[in-house]
Amino acid sequence: MYIELDDQSSTPIYLQLANQIIRGIANKELVPYEALPSGRMLAGDLGINMHTVNKAYHYLEDKRFIQVQPKSGAMIHPEAVRAASASEVQLLKERLQPIIDEARCLRLSKEAIYQLIKECENDD
Amino acid sequence: MYIELDDQSSTPIYLQLANQIIRGIANKELVPYEALPSGRMLAGDLGINMHTVNKAYHYLEDKRFIQVQPKSGAMIHPEAVRAASASEVQLLKERLQPIIDEARCLRLSKEAIYQLIKECENDD
Repeated sequence: MYIELDDQSSTPIYLQLANQIIRGIANKELVPYEALPSGRMLAGDLGINMHTVNKAYHYLEDKRFIQVQPKSGAMIHPEAVRAASASEVQLLKERLQPIIDEARCLRLSKEAIYQLIKECENDD
Repeated sequence: MYIELDDQSSTPIYLQLANQIIRGIANKELVPYEALPSGRMLAGDLGINMHTVNKAYHYLEDKRFIQVQPKSGAMIHPEAVRAASASEVQLLKERLQPIIDEARCLRLSKEAIYQLIKECENDD
């Protein structure tokens, strides 16, 4: 899987990394039980700090997209692809809310917003 | 307009404040040219640091949702409600992308995502 980080972005590096791993899961490039490189190795490959990788891994662990075990390292969570819980749906909605509010100020129609989402779903 | 801040949220306070002002614009509770309280006054009302309010105002100014003038203070931008530029649409898409990726891992159908968006649009 190819990971691209943009240090000019307003999104912190750890979150860019975590988001791309989530995207890899959504696109089935990364599958449940698949091993992830160690923090040290991935940091070396990407030219970033190991703590940044660890922060991404913690974020993904909290969201149950990866599992980290002291001995065997990190892997894609067995239930990384799963039916959303009610609280997961609620959190997604809370994250969507400010974007939709902004889209309404910018006079995007419902159809234009749906079109953007369709593009997000197809971009692999 | 009622502003509610949650210091337990993972969203920084300045961003919660900015998002609620954007929401106020989307819902027409705040209209172009409407004056906003000074940073000092709003900070006092909300029980937060003045720098936090200023950070929210700078964020909104960068996005052209408010205008800040040295003498007359802050007001809702004359073009706060406007047709989105191509780069504004692109930025919205980039913010939607990780949420849609996550929704796909959580097996939300396109219809379920549209339903969430409909709820975001109706929540006033």
